[in-house]
Amino acid sequence: MSTASKLTTVEVNDKTGIATLTMCRPPVNGQNLELLLDIKSSIKEIENNSSRGLIITSASPKVFCAGLDILEMYKPDQQRLRAVWTELQNVWCALYGISVPTAAAINGHAPAGGCLLATACEYRVMVPDCRIGLNETQLGIIAPKWLVSGFLNVLPKRVAERALTQSRLFTTDEALQEGLIDEIATSKEEAVEKCAAFIGTFARVNSVARALTKQQFRADNLRQFHKEREQDVEIFLSLVNRPEVQKGIGLYLEGLKKKKANKK
Amino acid sequence: MSTASKLTTVEVNDKTGIATLTMCRPPVNGQNLELLLDIKSSIKEIENNSSRGLIITSASPKVFCAGLDILEMYKPDQQRLRAVWTELQNVWCALYGISVPTAAAINGHAPAGGCLLATACEYRVMVPDCRIGLNETQLGIIAPKWLVSGFLNVLPKRVAERALTQSRLFTTDEALQEGLIDEIATSKEEAVEKCAAFIGTFARVNSVARALTKQQFRADNLRQFHKEREQDVEIFLSLVNRPEVQKGIGLYLEGLKKKKANKK
Amino acid sequence: MSTASKLTTVEVNDKTGIATLTMCRPPVNGQNLELLLDIKSSIKEIENNSSRGLIITSASPKVFCAGLDILEMYKPDQQRLRAVWTELQNVWCALYGISVPTAAAINGHAPAGGCLLATACEYRVMVPDCRIGLNETQLGIIAPKWLVSGFLNVLPKRVAERALTQSRLFTTDEALQEGLIDEIATSKEEAVEKCAAFIGTFARVNSVARALTKQQFRADNLRQFHKEREQDVEIFLSLVNRPEVQKGIGLYLEGLKKKKANKK
Repeated sequence: MSTASKLTTVEVNDKTGIATLTMCRPPVNGQNLELLLDIKSSIKEIENNSSRGLIITSASPKVFCAGLDILEMYKPDQQRLRAVWTELQNVWCALYGISVPTAAAINGHAPAGGCLLATACEYRVMVPDCRIGLNETQLGIIAPKWLVSGFLNVLPKRVAERALTQSRLFTTDEALQEGLIDEIATSKEEAVEKCAAFIGTFARVNSVARALTKQQFRADNLRQFHKEREQDVEIFLSLVNRPEVQKGIGLYLEGLKKKKANKK
Repeated sequence: MSTASKLTTVEVNDKTGIATLTMCRPPVNGQNLELLLDIKSSIKEIENNSSRGLIITSASPKVFCAGLDILEMYKPDQQRLRAVWTELQNVWCALYGISVPTAAAINGHAPAGGCLLATACEYRVMVPDCRIGLNETQLGIIAPKWLVSGFLNVLPKRVAERALTQSRLFTTDEALQEGLIDEIATSKEEAVEKCAAFIGTFARVNSVARALTKQQFRADNLRQFHKEREQDVEIFLSLVNRPEVQKGIGLYLEGLKKKKANKK
Repeated sequence: MSTASKLTTVEVNDKTGIATLTMCRPPVNGQNLELLLDIKSSIKEIENNSSRGLIITSASPKVFCAGLDILEMYKPDQQRLRAVWTELQNVWCALYGISVPTAAAINGHAPAGGCLLATACEYRVMVPDCRIGLNETQLGIIAPKWLVSGFLNVLPKRVAERALTQSRLFTTDEALQEGLIDEIATSKEEAVEKCAAFIGTFARVNSVARALTKQQFRADNLRQFHKEREQDVEIFLSLVNRPEVQKGIGLYLEGLKKKKANKK
């Protein structure tokens, strides 16, 4: 069984009943408005198709998800920028709060919005020699409180505060050591298998009680999120629109162009 | 000095001033209404007899406490079921909030309500080759928020969420490694001794300041408990009364009967 | 560039732009009212002189800071005692909430109020063979909730509760192992260098986003502090004024006198 929207696919394994959500917006799954909408609707689809679990992964060979598409933030249309952040919130909230077991098969780099997806899941398996972390401050924006709340589900406070302020990207090995990921896999296939094995551990548990336990555990963070989500959009917009930040993004984009030109 | 109610004993060591509360409802200290009432009154007795500390342990050779007596949950009298859960709450609240130092000499298995007693204490010593954990979801009920709050005093969030949703029972070694217990002892006697040594470390500390510090540390969790305790009883009842859960308990009890019959 | 109040100095490194705040009230930087006022005004000075970071250290060779001057608590003038605790609150709140990066070069023992200063910073480097911890209960007072909130930013709950109730002073090695400090340095100079290196890691990060991220991370603790600060003064006063505590302080001071006499 397989369904597809434009930028994501959902495939349900007939044998295990586990759904795999694959992001496929080349080259790096930059989260533009359309990808975010597709991720959200794929999560909702899985929530409603009675899957036994959700695995999120990427069709790109080297990147799980690079986070917000930087073009969405450069000289932005304010209405669209508002929609982008709102949909990022919706994706987090849908994935963090979904009742079925969730796992991320992190088959490549996962900065910023990529780390957001991974830490919203209950389990993380990552391939070697990649980077993961919330490096928002590098660009002049901040990881919002709701995102930090999920980050703090997996990292000690001391490690989290430092990582957030330093824009730290953890290597795969560091991520395992600190608890940001749970296992290392040598390939995407193995990562998906390990995620499926994790989800399989719930076979012997009452699924209603499991879902209630997960939701009770995450309820405080979700309540806080809903209380602050509108204010959070305003904070994001005011930061992105700062001239200093726009200038920084501009320089970054120019750097990318030069790199491409040099490669030719 | 020794006093006894039907299902617990309290013995105060004349030399150290430490009270030992022993559960003695064979074979596994299943928490029926009567045992819970006796544990509660023993805790209150210790609170008022100016003991220097409380050690909780079991008279059973292989089980510290198996948690709620499953017979209380099968085809239950609703009034009594309500009383059982209310008294489980009372036991937790009395033990978690008592001002004197507390330690658990975990001389056998400690699932569910057994783990509740252990994590309500300030220190845990356990004998080898046993299991401890909050495995409520296996039976179709959930570890309530107040119980989870005490669980989170000793385990990282990442470990706790997974353990709760998976109904994980930690071996003695795993429990030590994750922080769910503090020491391993080779026998019940040694476990009690190590608990007494822990309580002895407070001799050089002002006892009023110690008590205030403990209570300040635990106040938020207790406040939350009192706010939600009535609602929590309703949640428990609604889960236990689900036909699916009653059926599961029935099958479990039949399995036990067959085991016994086969042994004969 | 260097400025000095009576009991502290502030020196800004022209090359790095990092300000070093040095406490210099011999012999042990006992926090009397005057030292606390000087620390506070030095922090405010650094906040306003556009320094790139703050390092706090001590001019004493063996002690970073011994905590509240015990003479302030013995047969106290109530008005002054109230001012002392209020200024201790002000110092914590100013240091914990300052937007620039902060680090403590702990060049000696750091009990009680010394540990308070260290844990209010973002990073801690300590010399070998010293002690650090919140040992308030030993004297009959308690580490207030706001101070504990900072302690919990660096230590697991399980370790923190036990340390607070036991008046535990961690050796340098234990402090590193538990996360109470981040690095060990063989000398004060090396400690200051390592603190400067930590602050240097923020060079590549947007400073506005960094400051907002830090303040967002610490906002809940600060909000709680402001809500409870007046009540906290009353608790402190009522504990210090207890006859039992006054007697304890008296005995402690007599012991100190005898030690001095024996040395002559």
